[in-house]
Amino acid sequence: MTALKNDCFIRALLRKPVGYTPVWMMRQAGRYLPEYRRVREKAGSFMNLCTNPELACEVTLQPLDRFRLDAAILFSDILTIPDAMGLGLHFIEGEGPRFSRPIRTDEDINALIVPDPEEKLCYVTDAVRLIQRELQGKVPLIGFSGSPWTLATYMVEGGSSRDFRKLKAMLYDQPDLLHVLLGKLADAVAAYLNAQIAAGVNAVMLFDTWGGSLTTGQYQDFSLHYAERILNQLKLKQNGQVIPAILFTKGGGLWLEAMAATGYNALGLDWQTPISEARRRVGGKVALQGNLDPVALYASPESIRGEVKKILTDFGQGVGHVFNLGHGVHPDIHPEHVGAMVDAVHEFSPAFHCNG
Amino acid sequence: MTALKNDCFIRALLRKPVGYTPVWMMRQAGRYLPEYRRVREKAGSFMNLCTNPELACEVTLQPLDRFRLDAAILFSDILTIPDAMGLGLHFIEGEGPRFSRPIRTDEDINALIVPDPEEKLCYVTDAVRLIQRELQGKVPLIGFSGSPWTLATYMVEGGSSRDFRKLKAMLYDQPDLLHVLLGKLADAVAAYLNAQIAAGVNAVMLFDTWGGSLTTGQYQDFSLHYAERILNQLKLKQNGQVIPAILFTKGGGLWLEAMAATGYNALGLDWQTPISEARRRVGGKVALQGNLDPVALYASPESIRGEVKKILTDFGQGVGHVFNLGHGVHPDIHPEHVGAMVDAVHEFSPAFHCNG
Repeated sequence: MTALKNDCFIRALLRKPVGYTPVWMMRQAGRYLPEYRRVREKAGSFMNLCTNPELACEVTLQPLDRFRLDAAILFSDILTIPDAMGLGLHFIEGEGPRFSRPIRTDEDINALIVPDPEEKLCYVTDAVRLIQRELQGKVPLIGFSGSPWTLATYMVEGGSSRDFRKLKAMLYDQPDLLHVLLGKLADAVAAYLNAQIAAGVNAVMLFDTWGGSLTTGQYQDFSLHYAERILNQLKLKQNGQVIPAILFTKGGGLWLEAMAATGYNALGLDWQTPISEARRRVGGKVALQGNLDPVALYASPESIRGEVKKILTDFGQGVGHVFNLGHGVHPDIHPEHVGAMVDAVHEFSPAFHCNG
Repeated sequence: MTALKNDCFIRALLRKPVGYTPVWMMRQAGRYLPEYRRVREKAGSFMNLCTNPELACEVTLQPLDRFRLDAAILFSDILTIPDAMGLGLHFIEGEGPRFSRPIRTDEDINALIVPDPEEKLCYVTDAVRLIQRELQGKVPLIGFSGSPWTLATYMVEGGSSRDFRKLKAMLYDQPDLLHVLLGKLADAVAAYLNAQIAAGVNAVMLFDTWGGSLTTGQYQDFSLHYAERILNQLKLKQNGQVIPAILFTKGGGLWLEAMAATGYNALGLDWQTPISEARRRVGGKVALQGNLDPVALYASPESIRGEVKKILTDFGQGVGHVFNLGHGVHPDIHPEHVGAMVDAVHEFSPAFHCNG
C-alpha cells in the first residue's frame, strides 16, 4: 500500500487537525466532463464502462487532472450488487437503470444469493487495484456501495421510481419478508465493501439515496439498522491504517443523531440541513461532509464562490469538515463552475484551520 | 352564510375540543375516483374542468358522497394565478403543466401585473359560491393557493421541474429580482385567497409543495417570508367566524418552529416528521394536519387501518389534530383503500378525545 501524499481528506474524516478543508464532489467522475463523455462513447454502454477496469480507472482519474480535489472516488454504479445477484441490470437511454428480473415474491427473495465479490464483482476490485497503482498515493481513493434500502428500491420497483410504491407496499404488508431481503443485501454490501477495502480503497461511503422517503421509525428499522449491520462487518483497519466510513442519507436531516450513534466516522449532509446545525447536533461524534446545493453550480462563478464561503463560515473553525455537494453534480454543469467551487474551498478554508 | 352542520374540522384547526379527529385528504377530488374521470372526460381538458364552475362543483362534492370526510376542498389548480397573469397555462397529456410564456428576465418580471381575482379568476369564486350552495353547510369548504415560491418554480422553469435550476440560478445570481417576483406573487395570492374567502370558503390552505428544495435560510427568506406576507393581508374574520389558515411545506420538517411562529392556525405535515415530534415542537401554538404517507394507500386495507391507528396514537390525546395524508393521494389508488383510511379515523379517533 503506497503511503498517501495528501491525507487531508482522511484526517478530516477522523476529525484530526488539517491545514485546509478537503474537497471532493459526488459524481465528480461523470458526464459533466467532456473527457468522460468521450470515454463513455468509446465504451459503447454505461455497463461496459463500469465493467472495464481500464476505462473505469481512466474516468476515475479524469477530474483529478482538472481540479485540486482531495479524494478520488471509484467510478462504478450502486446497482452492481443486484446485477451480481442475477437481476439483469441494463440502462435505457434517457430513462435510467432497469432490471430484467425484478424481485417481487417470497420465492424471488428466498432464492437470492449473496454474491461472492471476488467472483462476481472482480471488475470492481480490479479497477480499485489499477486506480491505486495509477494514483500512487496522490490522494485517497473512496470505495462505495448503495445502502440496502436504496438497492431494494431499484430491485423491487424494477428501476428508478419516484415513490417506491411496490417496495413500500411490501414494507406495510410483508415487513418480515422485506427484512429478509434487506438482511441479504446488508451482507452482500458488507462483503462487497470488504473486497474493495482488501483491494486498497482508503475510505468507504454508503449511499442511502432514498432513505429520506421513509417515515421516522421506518428509517431506523428498514434503512439505518442495515447500515449499522454493514458497519459491524467491515474490516476498517488495514495495515495499521483506519479506513473511515461515511454514511449519507439524502433527506435524512431529521435523523442525524441516530445516524451519528451508529459508529460511522462521518455523515454526508444534503443541502437542506445547515452544516452549523448539524455540527451542533452531532459534530462532537462524527465528521460532516457537505453541503452545497448541487443546483448552486448553475449560478455564476462569483455566486458559487460566495456560497462556498458561506458554508465554510457556517461550519466555522475546527476539525471535521469535508467540503462536498449535498448530492451528485448534475450532468450539464459547466466544468468551470466546478473549478470555481474547488478553488474557492482552497482559497477560503485555511482561515478556518489553526495549523494552516 | 349557512351555518356549518359539521364544524369538527374548523374546531380542530382552532385547537378546540372535538369528539373525534376530523379527516380529509389532499387531492380527494381527483383521478383516483372513476366518477371524477368521467367528468374530466366530459370536460375535454383539465383546464376546461377547472374553469367551469358547475363541473368544478360536481367533482368537489364527489368524494363526500363516497367517504365520511369532514371537509371539502375546492377543485382547482395551483397554477390559476400565473395563468391569470398571462403566462398561458396548458397541460400536456402525461407531462403535466406547461407555460407558453415563462418568466425569465427583468422585463418579464417587471411587466407582471397582480391580477384582479374578481375579473380574471371569477370562475374560481363562482365555483366557491356554487359549491357552498350545494353543500348547505354539510362540511366546511377549504380554499387554497400555491405559495409564491412554488408558483415561481413553474413560472420560471416553464413547467414541472425536479431541481428548479433556472429559478435557483436566479436566487443565487439575482436575489433582488426574485424578491420582486415573489412579492408580486404574494400580493396576488393574498387577493386571490381573500376573494375565495369573500365568496364563502371556511378555511384556506397555502401549498408550498417545493419549499423543501431550499436550504435553511433560503426557505425563510424566499418562501416563508412570503407566506407571512400573505397571512398579514388575509381577512380571516367573516360574519363573526374565524377562517383558519393552514400552511403546508412538503419537506419542511426542519422548519416547523419558524412556520409555527408566522401565525398560521395549522401546519400541514408530510410523512417524514413524526406527528408526536411535531406536536412536542409546535403543538402548543398550532394545529397539525397529517400525516400518513400517501404511498401507504397501496398497502392492504388491514395495513392501512394499522397505520391510521399508529398516527392517531402517535399524536395522542387532546386537541389540534386533523387527519390527512402527507401529500396528495396518488391517481391509481383504489377508492376502497381511501375508504379504509377514512373509516379507521372515525373508528379509532374518539378514544383520543374527552368529549367523544
